[in-house]
Amino acid sequence: MLFVEVSSGDRFDEAYAAYHSPRFVFMALIVQKFGGTSVGDIARIQRIAKRAITQTKAGDQLVIVASAMSGETDRLLSLAQQISEEPDKRELDALLSTGENVSVALIAIAIRALGGQAISLTGAQIEMVTDDAHTKARILKIGDNRIREHLKAGKIVVIAGFQGITSSGEITTLGRGGSDTSAVAIAIALQADLCEIYTDVDGVYTADPRIVPHAKKIERICFEEMLNLASEGAKVLQVRSVELAMKFQMPIHLRSSFSDVEGTLVTTEVSEMEQEIVRAITCDKSEARIIVYGMFDPKLVLSKIFGRISEQNISVDLIVNSFLRGADNKISFTVKRQELKDALRAVESVLEEIGGKVDYDDEVEKVTICGVGMRSHPGVAAKMFNTLEQAGIPIYMVSTSEIIVSAILPQGKADEAVRLLHSAFSPGATL
Amino acid sequence: MLFVEVSSGDRFDEAYAAYHSPRFVFMALIVQKFGGTSVGDIARIQRIAKRAITQTKAGDQLVIVASAMSGETDRLLSLAQQISEEPDKRELDALLSTGENVSVALIAIAIRALGGQAISLTGAQIEMVTDDAHTKARILKIGDNRIREHLKAGKIVVIAGFQGITSSGEITTLGRGGSDTSAVAIAIALQADLCEIYTDVDGVYTADPRIVPHAKKIERICFEEMLNLASEGAKVLQVRSVELAMKFQMPIHLRSSFSDVEGTLVTTEVSEMEQEIVRAITCDKSEARIIVYGMFDPKLVLSKIFGRISEQNISVDLIVNSFLRGADNKISFTVKRQELKDALRAVESVLEEIGGKVDYDDEVEKVTICGVGMRSHPGVAAKMFNTLEQAGIPIYMVSTSEIIVSAILPQGKADEAVRLLHSAFSPGATL
Repeated sequence: MLFVEVSSGDRFDEAYAAYHSPRFVFMALIVQKFGGTSVGDIARIQRIAKRAITQTKAGDQLVIVASAMSGETDRLLSLAQQISEEPDKRELDALLSTGENVSVALIAIAIRALGGQAISLTGAQIEMVTDDAHTKARILKIGDNRIREHLKAGKIVVIAGFQGITSSGEITTLGRGGSDTSAVAIAIALQADLCEIYTDVDGVYTADPRIVPHAKKIERICFEEMLNLASEGAKVLQVRSVELAMKFQMPIHLRSSFSDVEGTLVTTEVSEMEQEIVRAITCDKSEARIIVYGMFDPKLVLSKIFGRISEQNISVDLIVNSFLRGADNKISFTVKRQELKDALRAVESVLEEIGGKVDYDDEVEKVTICGVGMRSHPGVAAKMFNTLEQAGIPIYMVSTSEIIVSAILPQGKADEAVRLLHSAFSPGATL
Repeated sequence: MLFVEVSSGDRFDEAYAAYHSPRFVFMALIVQKFGGTSVGDIARIQRIAKRAITQTKAGDQLVIVASAMSGETDRLLSLAQQISEEPDKRELDALLSTGENVSVALIAIAIRALGGQAISLTGAQIEMVTDDAHTKARILKIGDNRIREHLKAGKIVVIAGFQGITSSGEITTLGRGGSDTSAVAIAIALQADLCEIYTDVDGVYTADPRIVPHAKKIERICFEEMLNLASEGAKVLQVRSVELAMKFQMPIHLRSSFSDVEGTLVTTEVSEMEQEIVRAITCDKSEARIIVYGMFDPKLVLSKIFGRISEQNISVDLIVNSFLRGADNKISFTVKRQELKDALRAVESVLEEIGGKVDYDDEVEKVTICGVGMRSHPGVAAKMFNTLEQAGIPIYMVSTSEIIVSAILPQGKADEAVRLLHSAFSPGATL
């Protein structure tokens, strides 16, 4: 086994260079993740196997992380939902994890059928230890010994994504898109050179090409930007996988499993990235807004409400509040639409204790601009608001951070907003 | 938890009595096994759940062992076979075991949806340790702690049949029908009072009712008879499950999952069982005969040939041989038709060393009569041969043991032979 030990600062450049250099000078350890459509049928599984064998013959060591065949998770979920509207989460995890087990066994069979060496491993078998938050468990640690042993023996190791096991042996899953996180976590545990995420799109674009036909593919994007884009609705990568990659500086190459073209490399920030003010524009149509009114004691209300909501494992997105002592106060925030009911129930339980009223609006959408260049260019938010206002699009709520500005808009306005902002900021023009 | 500790001799009668006595005087621990058709769709799974809850409310403790939903194992197998004619066995086990994992999660969800308490467990989770003979592994030991804990907590424990795990953590399967063996082994490990095997027939018959329409259901049969019937082609129970039940005197109630009628109780032998000479007649249409010719040294040939065959994990059925020093000798034996190729290959490898020729006949069938009463009634074999000869059915090979007589017949003659022998011996008339 040949590892290139690099300090975290050099990691991106060395890995990137190695990745593009002739194979004989560098044996890379690469973790490849294939999503549901990439393993959607036997022919696709065979293509993955073929490519993997070619790649290991060229000298790379390969770990493959796979999702369930497309449609399989939904098929299993539907079986459970025919029995119970709210199936027990522990059992749901046991049920859904089988989808990935099928894929990885088939991939290993395919590699061996072509004369390669491979072994499939489940989350339990690699000791992918998680907490016990069934259906959205978080990874605590990964046993890398077994994987390393098999790699050393010359095998391609094929690991079931999306699943883990608690320290007491219960099967868990990491939530939709969890295989991305599995792959990144495994890459980190193995100190891999690169994590390749194969999907049905060929990279991250300056905007969704279905909304902005002339949107450009982004060649390189930094972790922070990718994290914000993923959080703000770009569905190419699971948010947690990007958080993890950023924390451990694990470069991700996001690319298509249906072509060999280069995708988007997600890496540490390099200085020229700041030349572009806005890297990409994204939108999210699955938001809902909750508004809480009342004569609150500002010392208690925020922690009470958001504490109760987070106990339910619900993520809150934008929060807007302003307190005026003695006046009727208002707190607005947004959650994912499918978590609206649970969030309202949590808020109501707090209001029973402290008084106040709650209202909601599930007909909202969110548009977000993102770019590390925004840090050095004030006035970006103003330009965004101006663009939307000129077009007569009302802005309900606003949230800004160092590298993003998000606006909550009425339903049906997000696509138009993305197009307007793409014209106004022209992402992809500079780098 | 209430166990009735009985000496092995009393076990059958006490368990049987308890099983039919009012529930309030006896809390039984029962292991129930459901085959593929019994869990074939959501409605059937819900029926199992409903019945289980009723039964636990009545005071019983329940462990359910389930197979994959009918068709699922074949679906998975076909996926693998689309990739490879001979898929790697280790990977095949990893693949096929998922079928049972789906069933048990769904059963647990169904029980919980009806307000009951349940937990599903995989072979790995209960530490069903097997050897590493992938696709036909043998159980070495079972960890009963986890099952007992959950039973103690008032849960119905739902365990994936057919699967195990090696001591090094590899997933194994026990071969077709292996869930029967899982259930019996778990019943033994838990010292259960009874193992109920639910299937799509309502018991063991004196002959296959499709061949002999007036065949009678057998109320009680002893382990030895059941073992021989299962070995000789009666497909109601996996042979190894009966061997195991006999060894540990675990009573099995074989019954239909589609009705509440009593099935057949498989138990230790009781004296009145001998009143019936022939308990049942069965046939097997999946046999093939191998004939080996040559000037062999009788000291070596048998152990060499059958040693080589057993190394391939192939079961040999009838063996007929007679040696005459210095003469051309012949050894005939039968194997399952699907193992014919492998068996021939094994024989040929031996003949390359010691000389001789091999021939085969895959157009044979076997008819068997079975009954513990045969021990005290000489002349049973003679009556059988006479019956067949009178009808002009040639007998190619014969094998007898204390309680069975088997004859190898030409293809197409087994059904007629079963009907003739059922008339001649009238099983089911006495007990």
